[in-house]
Formats: sequence, structure tokens, C-alpha cells
Amino acid sequence: MRLLVANRGEIAVRIIRAARDLGIGTVAVHSKADADALHVRLADTAVAIGPSPASKSYLVADAILAAAEETGADAVHPGYGFLSERASFAAAVAGAGLTFVGPDAATIERMGDKVAAREVARAAGVPTVPGTPGGVADADAAVAAAQEVGYPVMLKAAAGGGGRGIRVVADAEALRTAFGQASTEAEKAFGDGTMYLERFVERARHVEVQVLGDGRDAVHLFERECSLQRRRQKVVEEAVSPGITGATREAMTAAAVALCREVGYTSAGTVEFLVDDETGEFFFIEMNTRIQVEHPTTELVTGIDLVAEQLRVAAGEPLRFTQDGISRRGHAIEFRVCAEDPERDFLPQPGGVGRVTLPSGPWVRCDTWLEPDGTVPPYYDSLLAKVVVWGADRTEALARSRRALDEFSVAGIPTTAGLLRTLAGEPWVADADFHTGTLEHWLAEGKGTS
Amino acid sequence: MRLLVANRGEIAVRIIRAARDLGIGTVAVHSKADADALHVRLADTAVAIGPSPASKSYLVADAILAAAEETGADAVHPGYGFLSERASFAAAVAGAGLTFVGPDAATIERMGDKVAAREVARAAGVPTVPGTPGGVADADAAVAAAQEVGYPVMLKAAAGGGGRGIRVVADAEALRTAFGQASTEAEKAFGDGTMYLERFVERARHVEVQVLGDGRDAVHLFERECSLQRRRQKVVEEAVSPGITGATREAMTAAAVALCREVGYTSAGTVEFLVDDETGEFFFIEMNTRIQVEHPTTELVTGIDLVAEQLRVAAGEPLRFTQDGISRRGHAIEFRVCAEDPERDFLPQPGGVGRVTLPSGPWVRCDTWLEPDGTVPPYYDSLLAKVVVWGADRTEALARSRRALDEFSVAGIPTTAGLLRTLAGEPWVADADFHTGTLEHWLAEGKGTS
Repeated sequence: MRLLVANRGEIAVRIIRAARDLGIGTVAVHSKADADALHVRLADTAVAIGPSPASKSYLVADAILAAAEETGADAVHPGYGFLSERASFAAAVAGAGLTFVGPDAATIERMGDKVAAREVARAAGVPTVPGTPGGVADADAAVAAAQEVGYPVMLKAAAGGGGRGIRVVADAEALRTAFGQASTEAEKAFGDGTMYLERFVERARHVEVQVLGDGRDAVHLFERECSLQRRRQKVVEEAVSPGITGATREAMTAAAVALCREVGYTSAGTVEFLVDDETGEFFFIEMNTRIQVEHPTTELVTGIDLVAEQLRVAAGEPLRFTQDGISRRGHAIEFRVCAEDPERDFLPQPGGVGRVTLPSGPWVRCDTWLEPDGTVPPYYDSLLAKVVVWGADRTEALARSRRALDEFSVAGIPTTAGLLRTLAGEPWVADADFHTGTLEHWLAEGKGTS
Repeated sequence: MRLLVANRGEIAVRIIRAARDLGIGTVAVHSKADADALHVRLADTAVAIGPSPASKSYLVADAILAAAEETGADAVHPGYGFLSERASFAAAVAGAGLTFVGPDAATIERMGDKVAAREVARAAGVPTVPGTPGGVADADAAVAAAQEVGYPVMLKAAAGGGGRGIRVVADAEALRTAFGQASTEAEKAFGDGTMYLERFVERARHVEVQVLGDGRDAVHLFERECSLQRRRQKVVEEAVSPGITGATREAMTAAAVALCREVGYTSAGTVEFLVDDETGEFFFIEMNTRIQVEHPTTELVTGIDLVAEQLRVAAGEPLRFTQDGISRRGHAIEFRVCAEDPERDFLPQPGGVGRVTLPSGPWVRCDTWLEPDGTVPPYYDSLLAKVVVWGADRTEALARSRRALDEFSVAGIPTTAGLLRTLAGEPWVADADFHTGTLEHWLAEGKGTS
């Protein structure tokens, strides 16, 4: 295999390392801004594919396929973001006679469509968020349906998206009041006044199961909890979840594997669930058909190199593990350190950097593309480094992460390392007493900034 | 606890990290040459204790004790080397009312005396290298004793040391011929012609058991193999040994624990054995009453932080593990990268360094004091970094170590990284087909140099 890595930054570096560990030759692609980047230096070959903006380089499928042809690459790893979940890219790679490191285009398409994905989940017996299957005719019908769904419910515009046109109501009276208003607004905003209902989970945890399939069988590698979010972006992730019971873990991982079997899933994937912290119920939200940013936490507790397994499965090898052969040890936590200024509403802070000190030492893994005297380009996401720590238990992992984040320093630009360090010392984090809204609330109170 | 770290370089950095993980305040000491060293920056406080040569700084017990008094430190970690195995230093630390992180002076003294240590081993039922208990009167007595010891035997001057005055003989005839000659030489060289016999193991492996004791109980953390040596210095170490059977492992670890119990051992220690590769027999050589350079390999397979456990035991806590609570997973290998020139007989290469790229990423731990644009001082040992890798099995660990060593680069001075990289690709290393003489032989054939 000769692998083209269709990405940049820390994930490109990480994929190249996995390939090298397996003795696989590597091709990096890069934009103008990334000409001297670490992933370019670590790869065996590198090809310039366009100007700095991603829309003119990392998102240009044709340029990437041309680079593959030019260098004789026969496989493409898309990483995360960019083209990684575009079914059309997977199809184009396959169409060019190359191996796409991920599921096939049809699976990406199917699991990328929320409605289709929920149908798969239901077919596999995986619980989804209770709600009406489609639109409700009027306020009366809504009240009748809400009776079954259970309050509080979300009233959503069928044609809406991005959280727009959503109202949360606690009882029938509020629902009646809200319905007409919301429907009229939806009609105006989206040209379609159809409304549907979904259970609203007030204290929701985000818990996701890592899966691995070879098209014939599938296994899980336990779950991660990613409830510490800001604007729906994960900030801190851990494996395994400190917020679910053993029984929930067993049921949730079994559900994720059932879902993979239902679609004959191939490669690494993540089945995301919402957990109601009050009742312990869990509901399928969506599936990500790619490697995820937070995959190292799973690697550190299972000892399994997920990217290497993606490459093996892509090469046609069957899974090397039965479910019984996968065990976990200890606890791992990842902190996403970004070039953002917490004092200025997390404004991205590109620019030149000077001295860089990365955390190191026992059980600290720092996945990064950052080097001393380098530059943080303004064109891409602001992730500088993932500081991932392992501990024999969660307490040890948290203590170690405080030390690791203390060691992190980059001269020249503000970063979120200090904020994350403060966060790692919070008693409510130690107690895992949080849900998906907790971090936003804490930030809103100004606790993470000086 | 407020811990003074009486050492420098990577082990000082490593100890400070363990202390920080436990929330323990740290005091660094440093010579003139180390004023800007990483261990100085990472510690909470730092004290200059003298000029650059170790004999005027790191080896001056009084200066270290004065630094402890000045900073209010109440415990001293000696690291390895320097004062770590001097019973007088442990006694002085205790005498000053401070906690010495290690066994007490009497144990260091007893286990540091080879004859006394072997007596302890025999009392604990631990096999020692077969030989005469003391001197043999003449050639006839030697031949009679050799019959029992088994050929080949080493004829050694009782007053000798450092390998001088040693002859290896394969049979009675050769022993008779050698005896008079060797005894006369010993008489001339050491003023004492007394000779004794010891079994000579032709293909010997160096295997050592990591132990941990709290004075009441002791446990083992499996073994390491350190057969890849140059001039009796370990170059590559791994956990666990690829060269012994499960039965040998069981017997050897039990022997090490028995020895610890015999002396009521406290803190981390290492019980070293010589293994006859032909017969699988193992014999006690010596015990090291300190943390060892190669301790990370054990940490990576057991998940236990040995330095943190030393600190806990030193604080009076009982062991946190029963033997059943200690398990191993996968395989770990350590490569010692030194500032030495393999092309010039491993001549140390101090001097200024420029750009530094340290290996990183999944399951690669690089314990180092080295920083970009720094200096390798000429006063101390030449260890730059320990590249330690973990793999789900030995094959994966070796593959990963090749990648990690490829990533290692330091501008400005020659290092042994390239040689180690070559070594990690050798088929006989992959087959673990080596003993303590193999690496020297390979180097003598010029295989490791261009």
C-alpha cells in the first residue's frame, strides 16, 4: 500500500505515523500555507495541491486524486473534517481505482442522512429520541402526540436546521400557545410550516461508542464521554464515560454493534448517543463514518491503534479482534488546546509562534503539528494540540492532565491551555457532575477567564 | 511533602513530573552548567549547589542537605547514579531529619556489598552462580571443586576486581595449567594469590525483576531484559523478557520477592539475574536499591508509576497493590540515545545543539532533558533521551520504535539514534536471538556504523 493522506495538521501527522508503524509508504498533500508543515516533512513524498484556503486545496477532490496518480498512491485516508464524510469523495476515490480508507460511499451517504440513519437504528432495535415520525397536523394533534413522547418536548420545524425554529415546552398549555406561533414562523422562514415533536432532554450527556467493522463483523471499543462542549464543539473528552452505569455501557455498546451489523459497517466509526442523566436512558443521535478527533482516548485505554486498524481493514484484512479480545485499562482524557483567546470570546489567534514547550513524560501523549518558530495559519481550524493523558484511574488521569497542561506553553499567541488547566482543577469536573450545557454555563459565569 | 530532587537530566525531570502528579512541591538543585536546565525550570524552586563538575555539585552531600534546609524540603529523591546508592548519603539525609526516598542506609549497605547480598540471596533460597564459597588451596582442590561447579569455569582472583585476573577454562587440564599462572599473577597484581571458582555462563542473558516493597510486604512488577549491552552498559531494554519461559518468569519473580522479604525491603528496587540461555537456569547477581534508567518499560506494561509509588512508600503509605492486582499488557522497549559518535568508538560529543525533533505520537514516550538551542555539557553522562515505545506485542513495539527513532533528530552533534534505528531493524533483534555479548560482536563487525 502507498497511502495518500488527504488532510493536514495533527491528524495528518498521526495518520502518517500509523502508516510508518506498518511499513506503509506515505504521500502528504499540502496547501501553500503548509509547505513546511510537520506532516509534509514526515511523509515520504509531498505534493502541493493549491493555495492556502481549504476550499482551494484540501477540499478539492480532483487535486487530491491528481496527487495520488502523480505519486502512485493506491489508497487515500481522509482524516476528519474536509472531505472525510463526503460520499462523493469516497466514490471518486473508488472510481479512480484507489482504496478509500473508510466505509464505502453508500454507507457514508446513508449514515450521513439523519432520517435514513434513524431508520437504520430503529431497524437494528437501537433506541432513538422519542418523537413523532413526521409532521403533526395541528395543535391538538401535537398535544396528543406529546402525551406519548413525554414532556418537556421540543417543537421543531421539519424544514429547519442548525437549531433554528426550535421551541422547548413543558406542558400542554405551553405547547398549544407555541404551536401556531412556531408554525407561522417556520412558514415564513423556510416556506414550510410543518412542525414535529421530539423529547427534550434537559440534562443530556454526550456519550459515543467507538466501533470497528470489516463488513462481515463489528466490534466496539467501549465508549467516550464528550459532554464538555462549547457551542456544540467538544472541548474535553474521556474514555470511558464517568457518567453511565455498567448496565448502560453494556446496552449502549451492544446497540452500537447491532447498528454496525445492520449496515455491514467497514472501518472505524462512532455511534453517538444522548444520555438522559436523570433516567439513564440513551438515544441514538448520529453516526460518524470516520476517525474522530478524540480517538486517542480510546486508544490509550484499549491499547489498540485505531488508524492502523483502519488501514488493515482497508487493505482487506479481517478484524484482528473478537469482542472478548478487547479490554480496557485505566482512564484517558483529552484536552483540545486551541489558538483562541478565552478573554476575547475564543477569537481564533493565528500568527507566528516562538518557543514551544509541549507536555511530555509518563502517560502524556501530545498529538500536534506545532513546532517552535512556526506559524498558525489563519485558514484552518484553530486546534494546536491534543493533550491526552492516561491514568490508572480517573483521579490519576486528571492530576496528570493538570501537570501536563501546566507544562504546555507557546510564545507569541494566546491559547486555551490555561483555561483547560483551570477546568481540570474544578471540583465538578473531578465529580463528573456535568452535562452538555455545563461548560457553557461555567464559561458564562466567567470562571474560566481571569 | 516537599521534595528535593538530588539529581539532574532526564531522571530529575521525570521525578519532578511524578511529584507534580501527586501535588507534591519540588526543589531542584543544579550545578553551574545546569542553571537553565529543564529540571530547574519545571521545579517550584531551584538551588545552585556548586560548580559544573559533579564532584563539586551533585556529589556533594553537604551542599544538597544545605539546599534542603534552605528551601524547607523534607524529603530527598536521589534518582540513579550520583549519591543514589551511597549508604552514607541515605544516613546523612535521615540524620538531618529528612525522608530518604529509597531503602534505609543499612539495606543499601548490605545489598551493595556483593558478598553480603549473596548471603541474603542464599538465605532466601535464591540461586546464585555456582562456585566455591571462598578460595581454593591449590590446583588439585580447584579441579575437585570444578567437578561440582561444572565447566566451563571462571578462575578469579579473590582480591581482584573490574574483570582483572579472570581466566575461563573448559576442562580439568586447562584448569591445572591456568591455576599456578593465574595465582602468581594475582599475587603480583593484588598482593594476594588466593583464587576461587565460579561457573562461566557462555550465553548469558541479563534479566532483572522490578520490585516494590513497603518494609512489610513486597511485590514484583515482572522482569526486564537488558542483554543488549556495550561495555557492560545497557543500550536497549525491554519488558518483559522475550528470552525466558513462563516457568522461568514465575520462578524468577518469586525469587526476587523472597529476597525482598528477607531484608524487609522498602521502595523500588531491581533484582538482577543472569540467565543461562542454554539451560534456562537463572542466578542472582546483584540488587540495585534505586530507581533504574530502564524503569519506564515496566511502567508502560504495568500502568504503574514507579516513582510515584516510591514517593508514596517514602511517605509511609503501605503498598497499594497486592501481587494479584498487578498485571501486564503488551510489550515495551527502551532505547538510550546518547551524545556519542558511533563512528569514533562512541566518543562522547558534548556541545551546542540547534534544532531538536523528538519522537512523539501514539505509544511513544521520550524521557529527556534536551531542548532546542541548548547545550550538552561535557561534565556528565552522555544520555540525551530515552525513547520508550509500547506495542500490543513485541513486533508492534519494534516497528513503532523504528518509526520513533527515525523521527529523532538533533542538529549540531552526532548521536547514537541512527545506530539504534539500524539495530531495531536487525532480524536477530526481532528474533530476540541475543545474549550479553551479541551487541559488542555486532558492533565489532562494523554493522552499526556506516
